[in-house]
Amino acid sequence: MAGSSPDCGIDSLKPFFYPRRIAVVGASRTPTGIGHRILESLQKGGFSGTILPVNPHATAIAGLLAFSSLKAIPDPVDLAVIAVPPHTVLSVIDDCAAMRVPAVVLITAGFAETGGSGTSLEEQLRAKVRQHGIRLIGPNCFGLMNLDPAVRLNATYTPAIPPTGRVALASESGGMGLAVVTAASRLNLGLSSFVSVGNHADVTVNDLLEYWEQDQATDVILLYVETVVNPRRFRLIAERVGRTKPIVVIKAGRTQAGQSAAGSHTAALATSDTAVDALFKQCGAIRATTLEEFLSLATGLSNQRLPSNRRIGILTNSGGPGVLCADSCAGEGLMVPELSKKTQAALASFLPPTAALNNPVDVIGFATEEQHAQAVETMLQSDEIDALIIVHVSVRAKDNDPVAAGIVRGIRAARRAIGQKKPVYLCWMAEGDLDRTFTIDGEIVPTYRRPDIPPRILRHALAYEAWRRRPIGPTPSYADMDLSTAKALCAKALLERGSGWLTTEETHALLGAMNLPLAQGAVATSADEAVKLAQKIGYPVAVKLASHHILHKTEIGAVRLNLQSERDVRDAFEAIRARLTHENKLDAMEGVLVQPMLSGGVEVMVGMSRDPLFGPLIAFGLGGIHVEILGDVQFRVAPLTERDAADMIQGIKGYRLLTGYRSRPAVDIKGIKEVLLRIALLAEAIPEISELDLNPIFALPEGHGYKIADVRARLDGPKHMAGGE
Amino acid sequence: MAGSSPDCGIDSLKPFFYPRRIAVVGASRTPTGIGHRILESLQKGGFSGTILPVNPHATAIAGLLAFSSLKAIPDPVDLAVIAVPPHTVLSVIDDCAAMRVPAVVLITAGFAETGGSGTSLEEQLRAKVRQHGIRLIGPNCFGLMNLDPAVRLNATYTPAIPPTGRVALASESGGMGLAVVTAASRLNLGLSSFVSVGNHADVTVNDLLEYWEQDQATDVILLYVETVVNPRRFRLIAERVGRTKPIVVIKAGRTQAGQSAAGSHTAALATSDTAVDALFKQCGAIRATTLEEFLSLATGLSNQRLPSNRRIGILTNSGGPGVLCADSCAGEGLMVPELSKKTQAALASFLPPTAALNNPVDVIGFATEEQHAQAVETMLQSDEIDALIIVHVSVRAKDNDPVAAGIVRGIRAARRAIGQKKPVYLCWMAEGDLDRTFTIDGEIVPTYRRPDIPPRILRHALAYEAWRRRPIGPTPSYADMDLSTAKALCAKALLERGSGWLTTEETHALLGAMNLPLAQGAVATSADEAVKLAQKIGYPVAVKLASHHILHKTEIGAVRLNLQSERDVRDAFEAIRARLTHENKLDAMEGVLVQPMLSGGVEVMVGMSRDPLFGPLIAFGLGGIHVEILGDVQFRVAPLTERDAADMIQGIKGYRLLTGYRSRPAVDIKGIKEVLLRIALLAEAIPEISELDLNPIFALPEGHGYKIADVRARLDGPKHMAGGE
Repeated sequence: MAGSSPDCGIDSLKPFFYPRRIAVVGASRTPTGIGHRILESLQKGGFSGTILPVNPHATAIAGLLAFSSLKAIPDPVDLAVIAVPPHTVLSVIDDCAAMRVPAVVLITAGFAETGGSGTSLEEQLRAKVRQHGIRLIGPNCFGLMNLDPAVRLNATYTPAIPPTGRVALASESGGMGLAVVTAASRLNLGLSSFVSVGNHADVTVNDLLEYWEQDQATDVILLYVETVVNPRRFRLIAERVGRTKPIVVIKAGRTQAGQSAAGSHTAALATSDTAVDALFKQCGAIRATTLEEFLSLATGLSNQRLPSNRRIGILTNSGGPGVLCADSCAGEGLMVPELSKKTQAALASFLPPTAALNNPVDVIGFATEEQHAQAVETMLQSDEIDALIIVHVSVRAKDNDPVAAGIVRGIRAARRAIGQKKPVYLCWMAEGDLDRTFTIDGEIVPTYRRPDIPPRILRHALAYEAWRRRPIGPTPSYADMDLSTAKALCAKALLERGSGWLTTEETHALLGAMNLPLAQGAVATSADEAVKLAQKIGYPVAVKLASHHILHKTEIGAVRLNLQSERDVRDAFEAIRARLTHENKLDAMEGVLVQPMLSGGVEVMVGMSRDPLFGPLIAFGLGGIHVEILGDVQFRVAPLTERDAADMIQGIKGYRLLTGYRSRPAVDIKGIKEVLLRIALLAEAIPEISELDLNPIFALPEGHGYKIADVRARLDGPKHMAGGE
Repeated sequence: MAGSSPDCGIDSLKPFFYPRRIAVVGASRTPTGIGHRILESLQKGGFSGTILPVNPHATAIAGLLAFSSLKAIPDPVDLAVIAVPPHTVLSVIDDCAAMRVPAVVLITAGFAETGGSGTSLEEQLRAKVRQHGIRLIGPNCFGLMNLDPAVRLNATYTPAIPPTGRVALASESGGMGLAVVTAASRLNLGLSSFVSVGNHADVTVNDLLEYWEQDQATDVILLYVETVVNPRRFRLIAERVGRTKPIVVIKAGRTQAGQSAAGSHTAALATSDTAVDALFKQCGAIRATTLEEFLSLATGLSNQRLPSNRRIGILTNSGGPGVLCADSCAGEGLMVPELSKKTQAALASFLPPTAALNNPVDVIGFATEEQHAQAVETMLQSDEIDALIIVHVSVRAKDNDPVAAGIVRGIRAARRAIGQKKPVYLCWMAEGDLDRTFTIDGEIVPTYRRPDIPPRILRHALAYEAWRRRPIGPTPSYADMDLSTAKALCAKALLERGSGWLTTEETHALLGAMNLPLAQGAVATSADEAVKLAQKIGYPVAVKLASHHILHKTEIGAVRLNLQSERDVRDAFEAIRARLTHENKLDAMEGVLVQPMLSGGVEVMVGMSRDPLFGPLIAFGLGGIHVEILGDVQFRVAPLTERDAADMIQGIKGYRLLTGYRSRPAVDIKGIKEVLLRIALLAEAIPEISELDLNPIFALPEGHGYKIADVRARLDGPKHMAGGE
């Protein structure tokens, strides 16, 4: 592999995982030095290739022949692991280039995470590796592992080796990687490989997702990230990878307080958590919020099939913990159906008379191995449940072995008899025996300590499976959208006035170009003109201030609804003018917008704001107070697929109001969907539009479309699309 | 103590906790028998008094002199622990009565939890112990413990003894009690006493709360319950006890699925979780939803002071876990404030240059004992934070001892220097050393494994402290309420028509008696009459069907709003009549209610429903779709205090709408509060009112009160007040 020409595809990552010759540059003789510890980890881990320590002051380290520099190594090197002081890193990279080393893991800290000169050093570093076609993991990282028994690569500074399994892990935090890697044995969590991406100056989580997509050894991918690098690329890759391999993510720095911590840690860019949540929803990534959920999902999803439906059987030897498990099922939207008379009779034939048979099935504290075996087999074979959770509380320590044996026997019998692959999860509350693992003919049964965990994992598994079953769906385009007119209009406004809000006339023209039907109406600059317009439209009408400087019109009484007569219109115009005069803002009055009085539909709103990293965020909610006060709003990141638009509409709590509530008819959901899709296309096409607010939109009864009653749009000078990778 | 006359006060419970002579009835010779195991537990636990085995077939058991029956024991017995088959229990109780045994723990199962004849056996049992003045714990229980070193009482069938501490535990589930008691040592959770209440045929959790209120050894009370026995008494006791000792509760069987499990387990009555949640809020009980939260609260609250405010300092040696902790703080509504330049400078003077100083403070992976000690002390002494969370990830196993020593030194120094009592919580992620405990001069520092736990405990602690600081407040009464008229009206309706909805006239009279101002208006039985009423009221008016059979008027178009003229009113009347004729329901039409058209306020609703166990539940929300579709509603259990009413109003998400939103004025919150309080008093006074719905109520601007636009009330024949204890 050495000497092959590196590129940016996944082949360029192979030397990280399958090197034959590894140089450890900065391998110190003092055992506490990081370089030395990496050397030890490689040796203790039983690396199958050759380890080449590099140290200018030593001829042998830890029993290995040492080289004074990379260049002194006679043969090609596949991977260089570098742990030298930051100021010497660039010259070591030059040596790598000279030696045509295709891959570098840079442990050294002191780069962008420290800000200032560290940031510029990292930029030089990136430029240099890109120039030479070297792939780089780090800097400021903890190393990497490949647990493939044919490789046995531990290039980190912990000697702890996780069991080999089917979960790949990438972590932006070294400490989090360390925590997972060291806990893996105890948790019976098997890993395929682990990468500490550090500051991800070159290789990112996105690259690794593509590598693990192809990796035969990996079934489940775990990510701990503080920054979503290039969200658009992440989305494209994740939604493709997610079709076959679940991706479980902790995105830390979720909240204001968390973000400040992330900023100081790995130079994370501040990103809006709303956008992160939306993006993960769209690409099917499973978001874990705690470390425990993260690890539990990993053991659960990598060892058991996804449940085919939400009917959960619970088998316990203790009422209380069984009730807590059932409570948790209900809280997660799962069902704990009462078992049929037939299944209950089967259970009754071998369980003690005081056992509870309906579900949760309580075999009672002192149930035997045989009773456990039969109960497990009976429940697994029943077609009344889609997954089984076993909750065991140890009553006597000496019962643990027989109970465990009974559980194993029961699962084995069910698996053999009918090839039953229904998922099984265990909650093993046996003090003094908490870390017992359950493996049956190679199948690991995920084992947790608390009864509320398995239902949570099953809920995630079901949601992921539901996402996977549905096609991503197209991002439609509309031939009747006149984007060039829209662009010209925005360019002109920016040129003439710079950043700011569009005028009423401009916003109307913009919506017109997008073929989004605005409620009929026009701007009048005098009371007479307003009356003429009202007569043309027909009473009742609405009269609203037209101004691109004053945005909150309702607050100053500048929205007058349900006007019935010429007198009303004239009064409204004068009242608005008087108010502005009083507030010394008459200059801001472009006139008044006279519109027909809309009613009879449901008021909804569609909005767009632009996140510096994630790009356009599209919002949907009911109009009025629902978005602002109750926060009942759904966001998605553009581009929107039809499925995204449908999910947004169905995702609000007030959705029932749109499908026909009480005597009201169902509204034209197809029409609202189209507004969302057109606005997303507009936002994508014209990055100068920084904010957009269609509020209210009157969603009319099915088949009748909608009317946009009010709209605001803001332009800002062009910005860089962030997140370049 | 033996021979003293038992009563129902807490003195009658003392023999359970401080017996000198315990008889174990059913102490079998076979070591697997439960009686034998209890004997063993008493012996192994080092019980300070005398143990008296009772067995008709043995003269000695486990080296102790055995008696053939209770009556054969020559001296008085303070406590009998009974583990005999269910059918012999009553005769053993007779023996207890003959021997004047004041207290019995009944381990035996096979009572109400099995239903049928078990239920009637339990009723006989209760009658018998009450008749003889014997206090009884159980049946179907796991025993009890008193960890007082002067007593050392373990009358359970597990030999595991928790450390002595200041937490009392009562559990309705034996398995849950077992799980907590066996885990306590590992978790460094010290208990004062433990009672497995089983089916609580006599002694209930309420009795135990009163006992532990007086118990000098107890600071924190833990309850695992599946039924709230006598919620009214629970509330009175809990709100009093909670003033000095926090009560942490898991109420299992929370949800539909969970309840079916609870029903089969300890014959729990199905109770509405809404009522449970409301009750706990009202009496300040801290509700834990998972076993982990339950145990974490116990160690947290029993060992550290409550924080005085929400500013949290985080000290970590690893960025990622620090970020997760900060995320969790933000999620729990806590603040992680940036530290002052002064404090940062102090930290910088001894921390490595790459340390993060702002908060979370990241001392970096390899920080020394001394650096930890100084950082802990500096943060604890800073007046910029109210609590400290330390998050440690072990990088090298050999660092654990010095880091732990540094943390201990830092805390000790801070505590001594300025008597600083600020709470400290630890997250110790050191694989292989997870169960390390931290005790400093007798102070236990609560230690968890995951960084999201301490913020959750601190949030609960702050909420509890806020509850405790506020007075419970009075339940006001109103001299202008004419309850006797209201009662007479309801009695008459029940007598005449039996259970069912009140007529429009009756509901108006009922509200009138309560001095709750209904919108002006009256019932018309013809179109002419409706027009006359409308003219008297003045246009615009509302015309609504008056019927006590048809409740959902909007759905059938029987609510006509904003009628402007005689013609409109006449049309409305005819349209409603036509619709009812069409649906063959004309008989249900009492007429139409003609009301002035209300507007200008905010629509809210007040409701009441009656839970069979918890009694009247009062509801408050915004009108319209907010309650039904968005679920933005607050419940409390009657009687309501002024504080409860205020909390309900402030508790809805839409509260901002009531305090003046945009151009709208603030509404008359005092008035709404009065509606809630009057309705609660009405519900308390007239148990026959089973449902009540004031919807919509127009809350008018401050100082202008409110108008009730519509009301429905249902009567049901008198029911027993449930939950007798």
